[in-house]
Amino acid sequence: MRVRNKPWAKDKIIEHPEVLIPNPENYKEKWRAWFGNDHPLHLEIGMGKGQFILGMAKQYPMINFIGIEIEESIIVSALEKWLEDPQPNVLFLNENAQQITTFFAEGELDELYLNFSDPWPKHRHEKRRLTYPDFLKSYRAILKSEGRLNLKTDNQGLFEYSLESFSKQGLQLEQISLNLHASNYTENVQTEYEEKFSKRGHRIYRCTAIFSQ
Amino acid sequence: MRVRNKPWAKDKIIEHPEVLIPNPENYKEKWRAWFGNDHPLHLEIGMGKGQFILGMAKQYPMINFIGIEIEESIIVSALEKWLEDPQPNVLFLNENAQQITTFFAEGELDELYLNFSDPWPKHRHEKRRLTYPDFLKSYRAILKSEGRLNLKTDNQGLFEYSLESFSKQGLQLEQISLNLHASNYTENVQTEYEEKFSKRGHRIYRCTAIFSQ
Repeated sequence: MRVRNKPWAKDKIIEHPEVLIPNPENYKEKWRAWFGNDHPLHLEIGMGKGQFILGMAKQYPMINFIGIEIEESIIVSALEKWLEDPQPNVLFLNENAQQITTFFAEGELDELYLNFSDPWPKHRHEKRRLTYPDFLKSYRAILKSEGRLNLKTDNQGLFEYSLESFSKQGLQLEQISLNLHASNYTENVQTEYEEKFSKRGHRIYRCTAIFSQ
Repeated sequence: MRVRNKPWAKDKIIEHPEVLIPNPENYKEKWRAWFGNDHPLHLEIGMGKGQFILGMAKQYPMINFIGIEIEESIIVSALEKWLEDPQPNVLFLNENAQQITTFFAEGELDELYLNFSDPWPKHRHEKRRLTYPDFLKSYRAILKSEGRLNLKTDNQGLFEYSLESFSKQGLQLEQISLNLHASNYTENVQTEYEEKFSKRGHRIYRCTAIFSQ
């Protein structure tokens, strides 16, 4: 995503610790306590401007949602959306996905989402793809047994790569769609990017990978 | 494939036991002896009119190819092609794929091909799809360890189903392409069907599934 510089973003983020949590390492293993219930915990990695996670939080009030986004200038848009329509079952972390095992304890999460992640198409950047084996190992560490990773992308190369990477890590594949918007999958909550690019005729690919033991 | 009735097909098939082998169960565990060498043995299930297998046999003279096709009226076209340009490293079986464990011994085959198999889209016909678990189990029985199954299809539903089915059986996925003819995969030998439907703009999907232990 192209990032427009927003010098005021940092201040705005600091002003809203009720939803944009500072020092999330302090809540490791305590996220259910933070939400004040035992509902399932879902994490979106690279949540962007938040349309997906806020839509999911509204659609599934009995699930708690956490979104991570490294870019201040982007996550601040999600913050603005939340301030217009605050929802109790969602919070944001302005953090690097490489650090997730610092923020979540073993088995603390039920489900993960990767939506339209940066494809890093060059081979020498393979390690940066969020479905690279090292990332999958960190997801396994924080997901419960049989936890699910849900992937959506319009990038053919990233999808092909991810299916092979999931397979190499012994994950089980389910609910594969090679053209989501032409399928009968009705529960789909769209991201900003997805709305824009599916209108331009891009195919949307999705699948679920299950971390069985 | 629509089948035009060819009443003369049966006679023609019987006339050419040098390539269209009768009673293939007699050669179980003896196919390398039949070919007179120890080259790898590849099997195409549902070989149709033979363009793929004959093209492969020509492209890879150090591999032996066997094709199975249940329809007399179709396999006879492959026979005619072979008679025009006989190749020593290919033979045909006019048999039912459900019987393959009758024709091949444990670990006898190195590689399998499924090209544009009937998708059987109705759920109640799932068991007929050539990537249904029972078929995968029979493939495992006749493939060597780490043997490969190569799948090509233009049917999105069959491809989605097959990836999930491979995953459930613990097969490892490699060389996935969601648009083969736009990829840099140059070794592709086309089937008759593939030529026709890719020209009409159908995407061709492919992958390899490895039977690791």
